[in-house]
Amino acid sequence: MEESSYITIPAGFKANGVAAGMKCSDRANINPDTPKNAYLDVGLIVSDTPCNVAGVYTSNLVKGHSLVRSINIIESGRKVRGIIVNSKNANAAVGSIGIEDADKIAASVAKELGCTADEILTASTGVIGTRLPLDLITDAVPGLVSGLSASEESAHNSEYAMMTTDTVPKEVSAEITLAEDKTVRIAGQAKGSGMIHPNLATMIGIFTTDADIEPALLKSMLKDAVKYTFNRVSVDGDTSVCDMVTVLANGKSGVKIESDTEDAAVFAEALRSLCEDISRMLASDGEGATKFVEVEVYGAKTEKDAYLIASAVAKSPLCKTAFFGMDANCGRILTAAGYSGADFDPEHIDIKLSGLLVYKDGVAADFDEAEADRLLHEHDIKVELFLNEGDCCDRMFTCDFSYKYVEINGSYRT
Amino acid sequence: MEESSYITIPAGFKANGVAAGMKCSDRANINPDTPKNAYLDVGLIVSDTPCNVAGVYTSNLVKGHSLVRSINIIESGRKVRGIIVNSKNANAAVGSIGIEDADKIAASVAKELGCTADEILTASTGVIGTRLPLDLITDAVPGLVSGLSASEESAHNSEYAMMTTDTVPKEVSAEITLAEDKTVRIAGQAKGSGMIHPNLATMIGIFTTDADIEPALLKSMLKDAVKYTFNRVSVDGDTSVCDMVTVLANGKSGVKIESDTEDAAVFAEALRSLCEDISRMLASDGEGATKFVEVEVYGAKTEKDAYLIASAVAKSPLCKTAFFGMDANCGRILTAAGYSGADFDPEHIDIKLSGLLVYKDGVAADFDEAEADRLLHEHDIKVELFLNEGDCCDRMFTCDFSYKYVEINGSYRT
Repeated sequence: MEESSYITIPAGFKANGVAAGMKCSDRANINPDTPKNAYLDVGLIVSDTPCNVAGVYTSNLVKGHSLVRSINIIESGRKVRGIIVNSKNANAAVGSIGIEDADKIAASVAKELGCTADEILTASTGVIGTRLPLDLITDAVPGLVSGLSASEESAHNSEYAMMTTDTVPKEVSAEITLAEDKTVRIAGQAKGSGMIHPNLATMIGIFTTDADIEPALLKSMLKDAVKYTFNRVSVDGDTSVCDMVTVLANGKSGVKIESDTEDAAVFAEALRSLCEDISRMLASDGEGATKFVEVEVYGAKTEKDAYLIASAVAKSPLCKTAFFGMDANCGRILTAAGYSGADFDPEHIDIKLSGLLVYKDGVAADFDEAEADRLLHEHDIKVELFLNEGDCCDRMFTCDFSYKYVEINGSYRT
Repeated sequence: MEESSYITIPAGFKANGVAAGMKCSDRANINPDTPKNAYLDVGLIVSDTPCNVAGVYTSNLVKGHSLVRSINIIESGRKVRGIIVNSKNANAAVGSIGIEDADKIAASVAKELGCTADEILTASTGVIGTRLPLDLITDAVPGLVSGLSASEESAHNSEYAMMTTDTVPKEVSAEITLAEDKTVRIAGQAKGSGMIHPNLATMIGIFTTDADIEPALLKSMLKDAVKYTFNRVSVDGDTSVCDMVTVLANGKSGVKIESDTEDAAVFAEALRSLCEDISRMLASDGEGATKFVEVEVYGAKTEKDAYLIASAVAKSPLCKTAFFGMDANCGRILTAAGYSGADFDPEHIDIKLSGLLVYKDGVAADFDEAEADRLLHEHDIKVELFLNEGDCCDRMFTCDFSYKYVEINGSYRT
């Protein structure tokens, strides 16, 4: 699906990605054969016409300056033309200069597009606590704008430009058929939990659609869509200061989606489904990941209990190193549930590992080690915890904890 | 201090450790040159006379059977003669047979000592979800008891017997001078966060004293002592199902310590100090640790805020891999504080790295990278976060996150 998916599939969107010179130096040191798109570090996605926009943002008290600027614009309800994203520098924790830099970047794009600066969202991902190289970025803007195109290549370049150590691009799209055979399109791209610099801030997701949707409805759809998708991805439990998922709706399809309609339900489910697809990609491509792990909790007394257990298992370094080691050490899963803070009776819990019952009523089951070993050698691992106490459930998408994770995150910034 | 410290320094205590055969097989595979004491897997500490006893236990909802049995005895207020500890198997999550096995182990010790089974505490550390080899342990008990001695070697052997992948024994002691030049002694030993088997449960601390202290006073002293010591050690944020810290007071010194006296205050501080010493040893010897890291939080509005921030930084895989990489990537420390759930203003926070100011008012300071690099190459690293909003403070003892951690915990059980 990634092959044929790209951010400019919805009508009226163009994109581009260029190399402003932030990535090239150290990338070249890493590998002289690095493909050209690995040097791309500034991306732009714009609509021919103003878009309604909605966003969800990191819960971190510390927020990057580019993000704070975008939050102010989005929450003001005003329409936007597009979003510029740079990698390599998070534009975070540098003080008031950080907002000024973000404003100047947006202004340089607005000047080329002939719109106002507050119609351009900004996003940055990279090192925290170091001022971004403003001139490199603003010098690249004219070429970035002049090269805007709806082509698949230009769209992919805008994705590469926001990637850090993501090893694969993460792009999704769908054409949705609504009542009376009307169709609208949604596309999305994300950069995930890869960090080549230890201070990096992490996740950015951008969706475009040519449906015509009011900001309030768009926001409620996005909030519902991310709840069990983007907000259920855990790589190391660290919540970055620049996380943002945003959706731009330009209405180019001429199809208006009203709230409380069947069309709205269909569109919302399509958006949720795309968020889930891209969230699985994010977890699978987590730093140093060799496994994709889905943790599902069933039968909890409350939603909070279900979340606490799923989250504890997904974040446990002991569970994650064990998945890396491909060892059915399910005592660690039970242990993580036990300290999660959730209220449950350990004597009622059953645990399955990729379908194999490993704990029954809180007691280790006499499972087939050879079968467990075979299941753990699969790339995708599913952990299911059945509390048998209520009707609430939850899940997390995560990955294993490998030597590579330590290597990536223990490496020097400079 | 460890050199001259051992559990039988207080009057009237004897100890021993023997090889029941649980460790030897795989230890031999790991290293044929392994010293004899590395094979010890069953330890016993007893008092000539019954002891008042107090304990603090894991908060994990899942509790090991040997631990549950000890909790029942300790909380009943009855006096005890000693405690038997086995490594290699946590006696956890195996069902009712687990309690029966613990009872049989205690009974076998009681038979040799001529006391009742409920005067013998039980502790187990090792694999979760596998029944312990009862016969190996009970067969070893006669030799374990007949070899009891107050000698330093016997005491050390009782420590080695409860170690798993701890790389060094952890023993402390102090002679305390009270009013009228009366003296009492306290000694302690612990086994920590080393895991050679992925399912291992972790921390056990045992203290002995020849002071005469009522259970209620002993318990309040122990609870106060562990709060900012044992309860502030984090290696990977995983709380094991067998953690216990217990103190046995046999009164052999003839010195009675009453509550609300100067003597009680002196003893309590001595106990707290020993708990701190041994807690630092536990963090320093964390799995794969190459660094000891102390995280201190000052100026929080509430104690909870201070704890949340200290805990988030101490548990952050991003911070811990950075300490391993010896990189002053302090944006990660700020980030961890930001997502800790604590209520604070990021624009008021200052952060020091081993005394070097790296963040001021939430903005990266222009610090000397060479000095930071030098400080990070020290074994001991101190992270201080100043919130400048209140009077509450807290701290955590932790270690870095190394390749070795992944190796230890990703390795196969079998």
